[in-house]
Amino acid sequence: MKIAVMGAGAVGCYYGGMLARAGHPVVLIGRPAHVEAVRRDGLLMDTQAFREHVPLQASTEASAIRGAGLVLCCVKSTDTENAAAGMGPHLEPDALVLSMQNGVDNAERLQALMGREVLPVVVYVATEMAGPGHLKHHGRGDLVIGPSTASDELVQLFAGAGVPVRISDNVAGELWAKLIINCAFNALSAITQLPYGRFVQAAGVEPVMRDVVQEGLAVAQGLGVSVPGDIWQAVQHIGQSMPGQYSSTAQDLARGKRSEIDHLNGHVVRRGALLDIPTPANRVLHTIVKLLEGRAALVAPA
Amino acid sequence: MKIAVMGAGAVGCYYGGMLARAGHPVVLIGRPAHVEAVRRDGLLMDTQAFREHVPLQASTEASAIRGAGLVLCCVKSTDTENAAAGMGPHLEPDALVLSMQNGVDNAERLQALMGREVLPVVVYVATEMAGPGHLKHHGRGDLVIGPSTASDELVQLFAGAGVPVRISDNVAGELWAKLIINCAFNALSAITQLPYGRFVQAAGVEPVMRDVVQEGLAVAQGLGVSVPGDIWQAVQHIGQSMPGQYSSTAQDLARGKRSEIDHLNGHVVRRGALLDIPTPANRVLHTIVKLLEGRAALVAPA
Repeated sequence: MKIAVMGAGAVGCYYGGMLARAGHPVVLIGRPAHVEAVRRDGLLMDTQAFREHVPLQASTEASAIRGAGLVLCCVKSTDTENAAAGMGPHLEPDALVLSMQNGVDNAERLQALMGREVLPVVVYVATEMAGPGHLKHHGRGDLVIGPSTASDELVQLFAGAGVPVRISDNVAGELWAKLIINCAFNALSAITQLPYGRFVQAAGVEPVMRDVVQEGLAVAQGLGVSVPGDIWQAVQHIGQSMPGQYSSTAQDLARGKRSEIDHLNGHVVRRGALLDIPTPANRVLHTIVKLLEGRAALVAPA
Repeated sequence: MKIAVMGAGAVGCYYGGMLARAGHPVVLIGRPAHVEAVRRDGLLMDTQAFREHVPLQASTEASAIRGAGLVLCCVKSTDTENAAAGMGPHLEPDALVLSMQNGVDNAERLQALMGREVLPVVVYVATEMAGPGHLKHHGRGDLVIGPSTASDELVQLFAGAGVPVRISDNVAGELWAKLIINCAFNALSAITQLPYGRFVQAAGVEPVMRDVVQEGLAVAQGLGVSVPGDIWQAVQHIGQSMPGQYSSTAQDLARGKRSEIDHLNGHVVRRGALLDIPTPANRVLHTIVKLLEGRAALVAPA
């Protein structure tokens, strides 16, 4: 079965690369510099377990999804509309589409835009692009997928490629858990341009993160979402175990790129406003990141 | 009567200069570069009304306050303890001490440290140091002083020097009004390094500033302080009328200097915590400015 990866960033390259390495025909759809490097040298996968050049197809055109039975949508939340418009005309009628994105509403948005089922997936992986066609993997790689008629097939497919998959009937809750954790770290790391270890112990940061988490949990509860696990404990664990990590939002801001903040703290603020649930801490963080994005756009045009 | 100005920053230089220009013997106490320039060329006063080199005394030593009947304490809130320790041994027993500082508790702190009465003053002036011995005045210059047996004398002294003074029995309320307005602007301008006009209209900023103001008013109320006027209206007016202004906190951060943020949003947060009044928006702003100060200290040692 042909597999297409829409969005050849660090997440798309990791899962596309793992599937290609297991023998599946995979096409990565991404920007010219990446596509060119992958066509020339394959995808350099620099993982915790191995370092290999993995050969696979690559294209800059969304039409390359033609013939794919499985499509992994891995674009940034800010590109979801564009991706839907690009994929729509070329999707096979029986293709299975997975949204492997940050944020909590990308699968819904894709589904509404394309008029077909899209399965939301919670992605737990730490990766980054070290350069065109060069993927660095720092840890994990497991997925949580909602139940569907394709559940068994997906579990087997990914398991065969070394990717653990768990089927959960509370993907919405797990997406919110990840969202709230991202809300606690991403903006602070972005605004200060500091790695987690340089701010989690600083004066005042713990109560700020607690406020951010409480607001997120209140909004999720207002939406009827049941967030699993102890989020505050998870936040503390990440702060201790990933001291050198800069958030993706921090990386975007440093590169003058538009971040996903509208789909992180911004999502909590918008949903809170609809539900009349106050989100002052998330609002300050969201607003400042947007101001810094606007400032960067003036300094360094994209 | 000899007048001493403790802290030859932009506020101290303005009032010291105005009094010297009116014929009073004034000594400015400040850092070596300023003192040297003032001794050599006088104080260059670049005001809205005139541009003059005003001759006056200058010293780097707190002992220069000896013989002064009036002492204007114009140091930053972060230097209040040092100033008290420096002035203490040299103050004349009958000298009148005015605290002409930002924040709401400097007069109290000076009073406690020096064991004598210190009058709190609300200072409304827009000034900056354009270089050593070079003061730029952008607007206003009026003072609000609490009632004392010296009220008439102070009003006459300053009026004769072109400085309007109002005596108020609610200086605490006026200091809180100024504090809350500073809380709304200073941190946002500092964190984004943007002038007021570049952020007040941006998405999300108005609700953030409203949260900051509401929290400040709630804490003031909890302390039994009656804040005069419509603070939100004042905030809107400043946003519209000073589009090119960077906050003093923004200037401090840009220069790698310690800011007064602990005495602005930080004060609201600390007092709120004592009173069990939530201050999430002020806390995020305070915490981020502290993180940026710490970061700047690593990059550019003071």
